[in-house]
Amino acid sequence: VARLRVPVQLRWSDMDAYAHVNNVEMLRLLEEARIEAFWAHPSPVTSVTVPAGTASARPAETRTVWPTAVLDAGPGAQTSTLVARQEIEYLRPLGYRRTPVIVDMWLGHLGGASLDVCYEVQDSDAEPGATPFARASTTLVLVDAGTGAPRRIAPAERDAWLPYVEEPVRFRRRGR
Amino acid sequence: VARLRVPVQLRWSDMDAYAHVNNVEMLRLLEEARIEAFWAHPSPVTSVTVPAGTASARPAETRTVWPTAVLDAGPGAQTSTLVARQEIEYLRPLGYRRTPVIVDMWLGHLGGASLDVCYEVQDSDAEPGATPFARASTTLVLVDAGTGAPRRIAPAERDAWLPYVEEPVRFRRRGR
Amino acid sequence: VARLRVPVQLRWSDMDAYAHVNNVEMLRLLEEARIEAFWAHPSPVTSVTVPAGTASARPAETRTVWPTAVLDAGPGAQTSTLVARQEIEYLRPLGYRRTPVIVDMWLGHLGGASLDVCYEVQDSDAEPGATPFARASTTLVLVDAGTGAPRRIAPAERDAWLPYVEEPVRFRRRGR
Amino acid sequence: VARLRVPVQLRWSDMDAYAHVNNVEMLRLLEEARIEAFWAHPSPVTSVTVPAGTASARPAETRTVWPTAVLDAGPGAQTSTLVARQEIEYLRPLGYRRTPVIVDMWLGHLGGASLDVCYEVQDSDAEPGATPFARASTTLVLVDAGTGAPRRIAPAERDAWLPYVEEPVRFRRRGR
Repeated sequence: VARLRVPVQLRWSDMDAYAHVNNVEMLRLLEEARIEAFWAHPSPVTSVTVPAGTASARPAETRTVWPTAVLDAGPGAQTSTLVARQEIEYLRPLGYRRTPVIVDMWLGHLGGASLDVCYEVQDSDAEPGATPFARASTTLVLVDAGTGAPRRIAPAERDAWLPYVEEPVRFRRRGR
Repeated sequence: VARLRVPVQLRWSDMDAYAHVNNVEMLRLLEEARIEAFWAHPSPVTSVTVPAGTASARPAETRTVWPTAVLDAGPGAQTSTLVARQEIEYLRPLGYRRTPVIVDMWLGHLGGASLDVCYEVQDSDAEPGATPFARASTTLVLVDAGTGAPRRIAPAERDAWLPYVEEPVRFRRRGR
Repeated sequence: VARLRVPVQLRWSDMDAYAHVNNVEMLRLLEEARIEAFWAHPSPVTSVTVPAGTASARPAETRTVWPTAVLDAGPGAQTSTLVARQEIEYLRPLGYRRTPVIVDMWLGHLGGASLDVCYEVQDSDAEPGATPFARASTTLVLVDAGTGAPRRIAPAERDAWLPYVEEPVRFRRRGR
Repeated sequence: VARLRVPVQLRWSDMDAYAHVNNVEMLRLLEEARIEAFWAHPSPVTSVTVPAGTASARPAETRTVWPTAVLDAGPGAQTSTLVARQEIEYLRPLGYRRTPVIVDMWLGHLGGASLDVCYEVQDSDAEPGATPFARASTTLVLVDAGTGAPRRIAPAERDAWLPYVEEPVRFRRRGR
């Protein structure tokens, strides 16, 4: 099963007055990981390399470019990515640490104009099967930045993303 | 049907580079509304009046306490409120405005040690039945701040909250 | 001496892990106050009344516009306001409170294309002469949003702002 | 002249509606760099290495520990670092980029219980002498977390920091 393993650096300010990463900030970490994994690099980026394997570790000076990072998005681009829906379960409190957390990502659904990104947030040295800090999913809709209308996922995008489609994340508490 | 209608002031910085309120910040607005509605006022709140001083353009504003604001929570208090789960649907982009948005809240479930807060985010002058900017729900677990163990909802809390229990929020896109 | 006294609502998330308003967030409060006091209301502000609806605990609140709020700024407007410089002194830790803090503002300098906004952050019920939580100043440069070049302060803007010009804020620690 | 060159990763959300890194968020970047350079690593940190040279590049998997990172600070520690004063000049707008910016730091003053941290924010591939995005300084006061009173800089701290003391940052616009 192919997954995108994106390290995300915490900030000290991600903590709230309880001295844990705030529940809202957790979604900020997911946003960062998602942009890293799916958006094409904007122009002012210098030294970049294609990643060696599935599991990423940031090499000195160069930044990996994920094979899934094909979406021409962001301000000024032709596509906007609208977040239509999010769901998140917090399983363990995440304390501040200086080493990045790993946001494991895959696609739970690949529709005509939308996709569901699934996440698990882990420590970088987590044992397989360890309970993640959080599980989540985000439904993204691709929108033409000019017209504002949803636009279909292009063949090149679909090709880049298909290897990462698998079963959607299972939530524990859902059901009511 | 009783609902809590809490006005929440946007900040200019809630907007992201798309010039709309960011999807993560929307959950920040819900957090603010939830704290306002459910947490008892901490001790250093004395005179709840904004002065009608010389150059003050806003009228003297008194703040009242919601009948549901009975939870002794926050740092230093006996109870911590852990966010166990959140779900949110974004229905319309929310542009910056200076007038507060209204966060309509009710309880979709009142369990033994947990509660589900449901939300709809609206304009203050929205027509009845208008599509909200977002619908959401949050599962809160009450935790004893000393032991870290979940603790039961106290009778006084249950009494204060029961009038606001109704059908949970219905999400459109859920189901996969 | 004329001052602008703008109430700014804290958010619970303004606190950091020390359980006080974070030093960086303090500048966020100043940004909010500055926008409120100097930017003209953007178009989609129609009915500035919060409804006195069923369960609303806050009184119907009307928002008035400051006489200094004449700057056609913000995304999409003809003027951008660039922050060129900021200086801030933190005099007392600011704990979380539900009542807004008061950001007292005046102009320490009114130049050709720039202005210095001075601030003192106080409790709403502070005694005259009480030590504020913070003192600060911001140098703003007006920039033509089309060309990116600084543009002169217009006569109508100058007229609106002149009554608020006085001695710049005095900092204690400066001097090295 | 010894400087601390700390790479800080931007977040997409650091941008405001003008699509540049927000002026307040710039101070957030400085906070991150300062904590990285001066705070001792909290306990839950695994693989760390002492840096090879002055200029840092984050090696795969391991994080460098700065020789100046000797301050036992943060929630729960014996020392709190209070920010007493900040000054910042914005020289060029900072657009979003995926490669970290470099926060160059040194000490402009090392007092009895306080220190002035000076900063320049640069691109990682900036030519020597290039105009930085921002210049800034922060006055930190060390406070005993138990008593709340300022406490003297300890000899081991002074030894670790002395090599980084040099002329304070020069601001252009200051003087009024």
